[in-house]
Amino acid sequence: MSLNIGLIGAGRMGSTLAHHLAFAVDSANLVAIADSYEDNARKTAAKCNVANVYSDYQALLARDDVDAVVIVTPTNTHVEVIKAAAQAGKHIFTEKPLALTLEKCDEAMAAVRAAGVKMMVGFMRRFDAAYVEAKKKIDAGEIGNPVMIKLVGRDPWRTDLEFARRENSGGLIADMAIHDFDLARWLMGSEVIRTTSEGDCLVFPELKDVGDIDNAVVNLKFANGALGNVDVSRNAIYGYDIRTEVVGSGGSVFIGGLQQTMTWTLKKNQISHDAIPGFMARFADAYAAEIRAFVDCIIQDRPVPITGADARAATAIAIAATRSLDEARPVNIAEVGGSSE
Amino acid sequence: MSLNIGLIGAGRMGSTLAHHLAFAVDSANLVAIADSYEDNARKTAAKCNVANVYSDYQALLARDDVDAVVIVTPTNTHVEVIKAAAQAGKHIFTEKPLALTLEKCDEAMAAVRAAGVKMMVGFMRRFDAAYVEAKKKIDAGEIGNPVMIKLVGRDPWRTDLEFARRENSGGLIADMAIHDFDLARWLMGSEVIRTTSEGDCLVFPELKDVGDIDNAVVNLKFANGALGNVDVSRNAIYGYDIRTEVVGSGGSVFIGGLQQTMTWTLKKNQISHDAIPGFMARFADAYAAEIRAFVDCIIQDRPVPITGADARAATAIAIAATRSLDEARPVNIAEVGGSSE
Amino acid sequence: MSLNIGLIGAGRMGSTLAHHLAFAVDSANLVAIADSYEDNARKTAAKCNVANVYSDYQALLARDDVDAVVIVTPTNTHVEVIKAAAQAGKHIFTEKPLALTLEKCDEAMAAVRAAGVKMMVGFMRRFDAAYVEAKKKIDAGEIGNPVMIKLVGRDPWRTDLEFARRENSGGLIADMAIHDFDLARWLMGSEVIRTTSEGDCLVFPELKDVGDIDNAVVNLKFANGALGNVDVSRNAIYGYDIRTEVVGSGGSVFIGGLQQTMTWTLKKNQISHDAIPGFMARFADAYAAEIRAFVDCIIQDRPVPITGADARAATAIAIAATRSLDEARPVNIAEVGGSSE
Amino acid sequence: MSLNIGLIGAGRMGSTLAHHLAFAVDSANLVAIADSYEDNARKTAAKCNVANVYSDYQALLARDDVDAVVIVTPTNTHVEVIKAAAQAGKHIFTEKPLALTLEKCDEAMAAVRAAGVKMMVGFMRRFDAAYVEAKKKIDAGEIGNPVMIKLVGRDPWRTDLEFARRENSGGLIADMAIHDFDLARWLMGSEVIRTTSEGDCLVFPELKDVGDIDNAVVNLKFANGALGNVDVSRNAIYGYDIRTEVVGSGGSVFIGGLQQTMTWTLKKNQISHDAIPGFMARFADAYAAEIRAFVDCIIQDRPVPITGADARAATAIAIAATRSLDEARPVNIAEVGGSSE
Repeated sequence: MSLNIGLIGAGRMGSTLAHHLAFAVDSANLVAIADSYEDNARKTAAKCNVANVYSDYQALLARDDVDAVVIVTPTNTHVEVIKAAAQAGKHIFTEKPLALTLEKCDEAMAAVRAAGVKMMVGFMRRFDAAYVEAKKKIDAGEIGNPVMIKLVGRDPWRTDLEFARRENSGGLIADMAIHDFDLARWLMGSEVIRTTSEGDCLVFPELKDVGDIDNAVVNLKFANGALGNVDVSRNAIYGYDIRTEVVGSGGSVFIGGLQQTMTWTLKKNQISHDAIPGFMARFADAYAAEIRAFVDCIIQDRPVPITGADARAATAIAIAATRSLDEARPVNIAEVGGSSE
Repeated sequence: MSLNIGLIGAGRMGSTLAHHLAFAVDSANLVAIADSYEDNARKTAAKCNVANVYSDYQALLARDDVDAVVIVTPTNTHVEVIKAAAQAGKHIFTEKPLALTLEKCDEAMAAVRAAGVKMMVGFMRRFDAAYVEAKKKIDAGEIGNPVMIKLVGRDPWRTDLEFARRENSGGLIADMAIHDFDLARWLMGSEVIRTTSEGDCLVFPELKDVGDIDNAVVNLKFANGALGNVDVSRNAIYGYDIRTEVVGSGGSVFIGGLQQTMTWTLKKNQISHDAIPGFMARFADAYAAEIRAFVDCIIQDRPVPITGADARAATAIAIAATRSLDEARPVNIAEVGGSSE
Repeated sequence: MSLNIGLIGAGRMGSTLAHHLAFAVDSANLVAIADSYEDNARKTAAKCNVANVYSDYQALLARDDVDAVVIVTPTNTHVEVIKAAAQAGKHIFTEKPLALTLEKCDEAMAAVRAAGVKMMVGFMRRFDAAYVEAKKKIDAGEIGNPVMIKLVGRDPWRTDLEFARRENSGGLIADMAIHDFDLARWLMGSEVIRTTSEGDCLVFPELKDVGDIDNAVVNLKFANGALGNVDVSRNAIYGYDIRTEVVGSGGSVFIGGLQQTMTWTLKKNQISHDAIPGFMARFADAYAAEIRAFVDCIIQDRPVPITGADARAATAIAIAATRSLDEARPVNIAEVGGSSE
Repeated sequence: MSLNIGLIGAGRMGSTLAHHLAFAVDSANLVAIADSYEDNARKTAAKCNVANVYSDYQALLARDDVDAVVIVTPTNTHVEVIKAAAQAGKHIFTEKPLALTLEKCDEAMAAVRAAGVKMMVGFMRRFDAAYVEAKKKIDAGEIGNPVMIKLVGRDPWRTDLEFARRENSGGLIADMAIHDFDLARWLMGSEVIRTTSEGDCLVFPELKDVGDIDNAVVNLKFANGALGNVDVSRNAIYGYDIRTEVVGSGGSVFIGGLQQTMTWTLKKNQISHDAIPGFMARFADAYAAEIRAFVDCIIQDRPVPITGADARAATAIAIAATRSLDEARPVNIAEVGGSSE
């Protein structure tokens, strides 16, 4: 059996997912692409041999032969598109984050529930081979009880200034650490209940002008007592740096390296290699595995591995951590509405 | 412009290249697949949306719309298929080795020359990012003059016994070290002029019964005076291990790692990670880059990066190194006919 | 010129420093050893060819030929011994921490000032080759402005339960993270002004019974805006794990590895090596360099590299971080008296 | 019990061993030092608190209170001094190599045998923690049967030209690879029976003028069928590089790293660390362990771990490998007299 899919949003990431759907997922059939810049849609459609192109995603949703949609539009449009897709009876894969507020998350989840469709949210790191392997080892008890998690999430560049505004990205913590918050919940098998943040604008003063910062550290406290810390930075000049350590009562598991190409240059007293250039290089295979998992879940009518509730929980942590930064105090997840829908 | 390609040989490697041609090389158009086991051809065709399937490769060659062929048949059929393809006026990509004897290599090259078509031979390691980077650094003079090359090529498994016979594989050295011989010539920028081998059947006695060995070390002497050594082994129990070191007068470059997944498990006084399972995992991207390079060279009418002469030279080294093993003496490449066609 | 030294405290660490003084520091002359367990003193004296042994350190201080003392007694006796040594006109090297309270620190520093002697405190990590190299690179501007520091300090064992009591060790954070707090101030070149901690007893319930925890994460905010985080753990089952990362505006520097012996064992899909067994293995050379630096400073009448004020500042951070843990709120260093003497 | 030792030869290495004897080996008592440059002897004696200094080693040997001697004189004097020491009834530790010819080795061994004293030869790598660990694992059967050994021995500098002459050093292979030949026999548990070398003067033309080369690769064949290869180079510009790999039927063990200081510098797409500066840095602990082992064997009247026969065997391989280089053919160890005394 094959699943007919419509792609909504054909920017860089949308185009990547389109390519995977067209060429790497046998059971997927990419039938239509919509993008408000129709040219984007057209280009991606040409590359992926897709016949139907739209500038209005509603037209795509109107097609009876579309079973599921993949939403890769700007964050602030996710909920609107999700609601429309749900109402059209389409199964949904949406890029992270679901939304920047819990209200918006709840709105999307309610629409999905009402329509009886499935929705999966795209935290691709859960499909990276190194994280998959770590999760397996933790679940198999190889490290005993996980009691502390340390997460590093660093970019080698400043983000776009307009995007950096709170209303667009949610700010540094929401934008970057949301992946780490999701990993933390998943790997630790417990909910975060409190966050405490320190952050500042230390390298790119222009970020301050739009209300953002460039570095932050966030302490985590979990329901089961476990601890954590996430650091995010926009000035990892060396490269894209995603690492995680889970310390357990009977061992530990570390995830992530710093080298892209297995070539070393040896000069006088200096041995060097390159770094990882960015998330597309680091998580290329994970994006393919993620979208394949979505397609398989729909076809086989199984629960999706990353739900709206997961996305909401990560957003709740981000909101609490950002409030902690603003108010210089620990903020409980319950306080921002994290524990209910 | 787009190049119409016919695939001849749809086993494991053929199917991999088919997938790359179908999905990863925009300018390639895979139009036909032939395999003497027609079922192989049919399965690959289904996966890659290819309409035309043949059990007889001559039927594929008869198609006017096929501009080029990709040959992934058993080694001992390469020359026959190459000659037929050349006579049919098709450009040719063939898997390594070109042939096990220099006479056969010459036959193939003569047919290609006579037909005025292009032929590229598939030494995929030259397209691996780590080797590409190393070659760039050497060519840029970053290590001065390369004076010594060390190559490791180890498999974690015994080969098939029937294949291991000299008449089928050429023996351990020809089968495994041919990649290293090609890399050695390419990275050192000089021809190998002498080889001296030691080898033995030390782990798998059943290999001895078919005339083969399981471990060998081969010293290399280059025309410019430089030195080298290749080791090959069938009992790298830990995993697939391909590494190269080039020592220069002003620095060195090392290529190749031992880890597949960036996950470390930390137990009491033991920190461990996995190994690389095999060549498909190690060189997946290189196979795609290699076939893309072929397609580009044909479309743009540029010389191919790996010629019949390159393949012949690597085979000559393999023949000399094998004779050195048999006769326990240094064997010059010239002695086996390595320097002429 | 040679400096005559008396050692007070000949336990494991005292004996180590005695060995360095006797055999690795040419300009030091170890002339007397005192330990309330005279047997300890005797054993170390025998090994180091020291003639004079005392059970009462006052007798050692009474010797006119002792120019300086090295104090390696239990933490809660440091200040008493320091005061006596200062009054006796001896220069002082004392193991960390100076004291568990700022009042005690001030008392010691006042006595030292009044006597006009020099006092150095033993944060040996500052003398480790890897940290020395990192500090040099930071001071040379190689990473631009340091803006974030991450420190890992993990032990592979539970501490002694009696020692774990707050009144003896200061609790987990004071006991373990004080090294990291010292490194943080030193490497960042700025004072910590605020700490926020999370911690819990997660692996060794018996620690809870004596009022201690086994894991903690501590966020740091520096006077210049920079950020930091320290994690400490008693259940790094794998080994002794001391690492630091300093992220700067123009690069980063990472310090610390996980491997003791450069031997790898390669089994089926598993490549492994050992871990670092403990601080004696990790910092053996640093202890020698530290005590050599002390001797040199006294002989050459130069300022000591780590002062009472440095020790007091690290203790102040530890006190604030522990209060943050107790009260679940950020605690400013100023609040605990960190900024004055 | 304590062993009284006389040191003969107080150059750089002699002074290092003196320091270990004086300060790191409790049961050793360094009582006298001789060096034809009496000033060398005097300086080392002053540092190590040794009262008796001689320019003539015979005077040292005449002392009744000297139980054993440590010989660190130039290679071409080893045998003469060994014979004198043996005749004086002293136990002997001598630096490698025992001698450059087998005749000289036999002379020394005969004198030792006649005198009934013990003689140990200083192949310090066998006492390096990483090699000790590897040997333990091999002996414990962790890698099954060792079937191939690869050894790298590279220096970051050209040797002294006068020393480079065959009559002084034995040439590149004898000078550098003798350590590797010793390791090869020890780790493989089998004798080398054949060598085949390639080598050339490729980087330092001035070496050619004195009859030496700067790079070589040597294939090894063992009595049990196993294989090996050693490479040596004088132009490892990056640093001192000693590594070994033993491939077994059931696993492998790798020894040796490339990094001296655990500090990484991370710049734009470049992550780098330092290299190992030289043998003193790499094998500092091994020299202490080696001399401690000698002292212990004498005191406890146990066989020494590295005998004259071991040294002779390594020299025989070096002689065969050098002849192979000169005559461009495989040379059996038996041919150079390697199997008899």
